[in-house]
Amino acid sequence: MKETFIKELTTASLKDPVLIEGLPGLGLVGKIATRYLIRQLKAEKLAYLYSPHFPYFVLVNKKGSVRLLRGTFYFWKNKNGKNDLLFFTGDSQAQTIEGQYEISARILDFAVQNNVKLIVTIGGYRTEAKDKPKVIAAATNPEILNKTLQAQAAVSPSGSPIVGSAGLILGLARFKKVDALCLLGETRGYLPDPKAAKSVLETLQSLLNIDVDLKGLDEEIAKAEKMVTRLQKIEEKRTLQAEETRKEENKKVTYIS
Amino acid sequence: MKETFIKELTTASLKDPVLIEGLPGLGLVGKIATRYLIRQLKAEKLAYLYSPHFPYFVLVNKKGSVRLLRGTFYFWKNKNGKNDLLFFTGDSQAQTIEGQYEISARILDFAVQNNVKLIVTIGGYRTEAKDKPKVIAAATNPEILNKTLQAQAAVSPSGSPIVGSAGLILGLARFKKVDALCLLGETRGYLPDPKAAKSVLETLQSLLNIDVDLKGLDEEIAKAEKMVTRLQKIEEKRTLQAEETRKEENKKVTYIS
Amino acid sequence: MKETFIKELTTASLKDPVLIEGLPGLGLVGKIATRYLIRQLKAEKLAYLYSPHFPYFVLVNKKGSVRLLRGTFYFWKNKNGKNDLLFFTGDSQAQTIEGQYEISARILDFAVQNNVKLIVTIGGYRTEAKDKPKVIAAATNPEILNKTLQAQAAVSPSGSPIVGSAGLILGLARFKKVDALCLLGETRGYLPDPKAAKSVLETLQSLLNIDVDLKGLDEEIAKAEKMVTRLQKIEEKRTLQAEETRKEENKKVTYIS
Amino acid sequence: MKETFIKELTTASLKDPVLIEGLPGLGLVGKIATRYLIRQLKAEKLAYLYSPHFPYFVLVNKKGSVRLLRGTFYFWKNKNGKNDLLFFTGDSQAQTIEGQYEISARILDFAVQNNVKLIVTIGGYRTEAKDKPKVIAAATNPEILNKTLQAQAAVSPSGSPIVGSAGLILGLARFKKVDALCLLGETRGYLPDPKAAKSVLETLQSLLNIDVDLKGLDEEIAKAEKMVTRLQKIEEKRTLQAEETRKEENKKVTYIS
Repeated sequence: MKETFIKELTTASLKDPVLIEGLPGLGLVGKIATRYLIRQLKAEKLAYLYSPHFPYFVLVNKKGSVRLLRGTFYFWKNKNGKNDLLFFTGDSQAQTIEGQYEISARILDFAVQNNVKLIVTIGGYRTEAKDKPKVIAAATNPEILNKTLQAQAAVSPSGSPIVGSAGLILGLARFKKVDALCLLGETRGYLPDPKAAKSVLETLQSLLNIDVDLKGLDEEIAKAEKMVTRLQKIEEKRTLQAEETRKEENKKVTYIS
Repeated sequence: MKETFIKELTTASLKDPVLIEGLPGLGLVGKIATRYLIRQLKAEKLAYLYSPHFPYFVLVNKKGSVRLLRGTFYFWKNKNGKNDLLFFTGDSQAQTIEGQYEISARILDFAVQNNVKLIVTIGGYRTEAKDKPKVIAAATNPEILNKTLQAQAAVSPSGSPIVGSAGLILGLARFKKVDALCLLGETRGYLPDPKAAKSVLETLQSLLNIDVDLKGLDEEIAKAEKMVTRLQKIEEKRTLQAEETRKEENKKVTYIS
Repeated sequence: MKETFIKELTTASLKDPVLIEGLPGLGLVGKIATRYLIRQLKAEKLAYLYSPHFPYFVLVNKKGSVRLLRGTFYFWKNKNGKNDLLFFTGDSQAQTIEGQYEISARILDFAVQNNVKLIVTIGGYRTEAKDKPKVIAAATNPEILNKTLQAQAAVSPSGSPIVGSAGLILGLARFKKVDALCLLGETRGYLPDPKAAKSVLETLQSLLNIDVDLKGLDEEIAKAEKMVTRLQKIEEKRTLQAEETRKEENKKVTYIS
Repeated sequence: MKETFIKELTTASLKDPVLIEGLPGLGLVGKIATRYLIRQLKAEKLAYLYSPHFPYFVLVNKKGSVRLLRGTFYFWKNKNGKNDLLFFTGDSQAQTIEGQYEISARILDFAVQNNVKLIVTIGGYRTEAKDKPKVIAAATNPEILNKTLQAQAAVSPSGSPIVGSAGLILGLARFKKVDALCLLGETRGYLPDPKAAKSVLETLQSLLNIDVDLKGLDEEIAKAEKMVTRLQKIEEKRTLQAEETRKEENKKVTYIS
């Protein structure tokens, strides 16, 4: 395997498909949001993307079988709406600079080949958490950006970077005459953040006119908040113990003298 | 040399050969196990694998000659059993991400070219050592995995990563319609661990119906245990000395004041 | 995108054009100087240079749109003088060693294709700041170097390295039979340094017989100097506080004993 | 420039040429030795080797001109002996793993093209310095190794690595049916070590039957020894000052309490 390649598992004839992309990144926002939609909509696997720029290990699955790290394309036939959906998510971002460009370009090529006219990439936007994470948007097309701003999103500050596939796909899209939109959920970024993913999905639903029950995310949000609380307690304990140890050390110094 | 390549030294007509692979990794388990079999069975050299992704130095041998880092394929004609054996071991894993994928793919290609239908990769599984290291297994084929579990192995936990060639060969095998099995010996991983290698070889022997005397490993195990004990003593001594030095330092502080 | 490529936006028939190149580097001297000329002369965009060796993020612009990191060629028709001007500046240097050579070679190819006979690269020269930064010069052609020395520049010390595109373009120019000159403004290098850029532009103006008002840079210089003063105050405060903290700590040790 | 390439400056018809190679490495032994021979023999330039795997800067020369980092081949017509000589030295080793293999392979190709039957690579061997540095040898051919051992060299310990071009050229030579010998001068390695270079040159002269006055190196050796002495004094001073500072600090602690 010298280059990134896509292995198609089936073919699907899709009606004006929109591609939704979410790889792991800040707060895993993109991956959590995309995976949630795939599960709720019972989307089906369409193709795998493999790359020598992914980390060099394999993962063991539940049955003791093994697979390469990969990305997966899914599709969903939208019986009531006007756009079928394609999804792309995966185990990892590329580990090299050239790999980042190569993988984003391949995702885009595959979208074009499937007549995709709009790609929505999802990621995290690092900031100190407020009560409800905002959704930050950027797009290759002002019309789409305007629609998004009407769906409870704020425009990204000028000069702000969007790192990895969520950004590069937008940057490369103009060479392929595909429109692309990036939705970033506000997150502190260092722990999985389903709350940020929920904000993004609310905007996305309103924008694409799809109807997915987001309550399933609330459980994950509760779990994530417990985790944060637990980590904060551990951190406090550690600080206290370090303080105690230092005092003990100082006493010892005195006894010796 | 722009790419990994294989230089064949001889040709061998092999009967349903199984390839056993073990490159350096955690506890050197794969390399120790593979090399032990090669020596005991007096397997013969078949081919070298060279790569610009190996470290950029050469090794001096006993006669003051020099060679590139490389991997070596060996073969063994099994007079009494049904499978001849191929082996692959070497000096090093690839040093780059792309190199890891490239070298694993080349090993697999060479196996296919020699009509290999099953590859067994060997490695280490990092854990705190128990009395007898267990063997952890994963496979591309449930039937082979089941047979392995009957040969005193446990199935790998789900989500667990297998790093380097031992894993990537399994991941890539499905593209070549070759079955592959990975056997990992439990090891702390930071020192050569012949005990973990022995556990793996017991499972492997039972699985492949080969008969190799494993007593030769016991000497290496005794040596390795002496090494561990010695290192622990050095570590204890160092801790004590550091403590002494600190006390002395503290006294000095007092005298000065 | 597997390789660096140039996307032409328009065509321009240019009269004996000179290319002026300034990418980000020490003190941003090259970028500040080149960008200032582009703005003052109202130069027009000619082409973009994209590369998979640039960092893997995109930038959001004022309207919430997004673009890949890139370099940009500009042109300016010189109505009164004998040389039209081409400019090249951009967001970033290449992030890999091979990328540095690849991007510099592409800039040079594009220059040759546009009949450029002289390239001037601009950068910073790390030194402790004096009142007025000097301009340090090196060139592929002694005649051009001599002219430059008459325009208030000093010749670069022998053995001195010139890092990145500002240097590599000169090194590669001899293979293309193009003359190249490098102008480095003295700078401490860790903050944007418009003062160093102004020195370089004074030399460049005299050399190329162009007439650009440099007063616009004085405002930037004043801002940069305020920034330096502010950073120095912060640093002094931090040092004082650290001292205070240490004294407090020492007192506490005494109380405990 | 996508790949390492060689630019020939002239052609030379050479009589059974031997190539002597010395790039920068431990103690700069290879570069010092090779450069000394080139100067003493007044060898002439034959070709340059350029590579995108060299560091990405250029060097300014005495006249304010600039050049890429490169390697240079030289030749010397041996009027009295049976072997003409080729030399290769340069500014730097390759900066990437693949580059190391690529550059060594190109040097070897160029040697073959010039009918070279023997290559001698020179480097340093890290060890604590004795009075007179020994010469450590390894070779692709036992006959050449034996001759070398008779010329005051010791055979390299088995398992010892030889890093960079000095080693890789030997490793790659067997694919081209060229003999190669590596001579390593014992050196601490962190400072230029002309003494180690002199030891290597003594062995080399005796081996190749060439007559070069090595006295010119004695001056460099004297300079290097002064440098070592000066660095040791600086180090001692620094240790003393650190001690003083610590004592002062301790006193202050006491006063405060």
